[in-house]
Amino acid sequence: MTETPGRRRLKPSARRRQILDVATREIAASGFRGASLAEIAESVGVSQPGLLHHYPSKAALLLAVLEQKSAEDTKLVDEVFADAEGTVGQAMTALVEMNQRDPERLRLYTVTAAESIDAGHPAHDFYLQRYRTIRARLAGRLTKDCDRGRLPESLDVDEVAAEILALLDGLQFQWLLDPSVDMTRPVKAYFARLYGKAK
Amino acid sequence: MTETPGRRRLKPSARRRQILDVATREIAASGFRGASLAEIAESVGVSQPGLLHHYPSKAALLLAVLEQKSAEDTKLVDEVFADAEGTVGQAMTALVEMNQRDPERLRLYTVTAAESIDAGHPAHDFYLQRYRTIRARLAGRLTKDCDRGRLPESLDVDEVAAEILALLDGLQFQWLLDPSVDMTRPVKAYFARLYGKAK
Repeated sequence: MTETPGRRRLKPSARRRQILDVATREIAASGFRGASLAEIAESVGVSQPGLLHHYPSKAALLLAVLEQKSAEDTKLVDEVFADAEGTVGQAMTALVEMNQRDPERLRLYTVTAAESIDAGHPAHDFYLQRYRTIRARLAGRLTKDCDRGRLPESLDVDEVAAEILALLDGLQFQWLLDPSVDMTRPVKAYFARLYGKAK
Repeated sequence: MTETPGRRRLKPSARRRQILDVATREIAASGFRGASLAEIAESVGVSQPGLLHHYPSKAALLLAVLEQKSAEDTKLVDEVFADAEGTVGQAMTALVEMNQRDPERLRLYTVTAAESIDAGHPAHDFYLQRYRTIRARLAGRLTKDCDRGRLPESLDVDEVAAEILALLDGLQFQWLLDPSVDMTRPVKAYFARLYGKAK
């Protein structure tokens, strides 16, 4: 792509938003390893040195993409947990329904999280921390549900937190691979069993 | 690596086994996209044209690796299902315990499955079919457990099959990323709840 008219008129903050949008799309499609800085620069309509002026490396760009999505997620999760009377089951069901409307975000996480098992991957520490934080947050909310008598007091909340996170990740993967898979029904059925019929 | 003495003496079948072993390790570590034919050839001790003589492309090599692992898996699953009296819960718990001894296989699947969401990935159809087959097989065995009164007759076996597969995938990912996560305890607790205390 050649330079587009007016591209120099974008403010640096607008340019960075544009780069992040394009990078999110490319990395969600091809992973960190498959994404190409040259193609991202071309889609944005800047040179590679122009791109590197904003983000000094592909790793820095990946982390910026993940940090941005993560901040959006925190808002989303705050929203689904905002109803203090709601259970973890209700919050997670709402979250899956929202996620279903944003496959690109799910795909970005699924692909880069799997790559990041490699300790040398730039997002390894990001995901290690992210999963610990999510499990701890879920366990805290499950404890509340136990305290309120919505779940049995004997429940091991740390185990169930890992289980819920695994279930959501796994169903989201199945749905991304094969959109004929319905991911909301199994989630609802799972929580109906966990909370008992009275959910 | 330079040519090692005696490398020409390997039979083609032995050479192919050696290539598959090295490719499995490399693809498990870096994914299909991150793995390099040049590095695989170097680790095997053959030239790149020598490697391409056995597997004509990186895609062909990936599929050969996945077909081989898949054949091993079928044996493993036949083994855990061999006890006709055993429930799906018992079989899956045994499977997770076996998987825990073979992180390389889990990692190969986790990384290449996530990449394969992309419809242009060489393993896309492999995984689409693999997940459909596993869900159908699980659903069939769950139906048996319902028929024998081990699970409620009202259980939606297709939903629960997707759920079990998701749970195992998700916990395996958490464990691969962070070996401090215990994946067998949540699996046991999940099935204890699903089958009732009498499991």
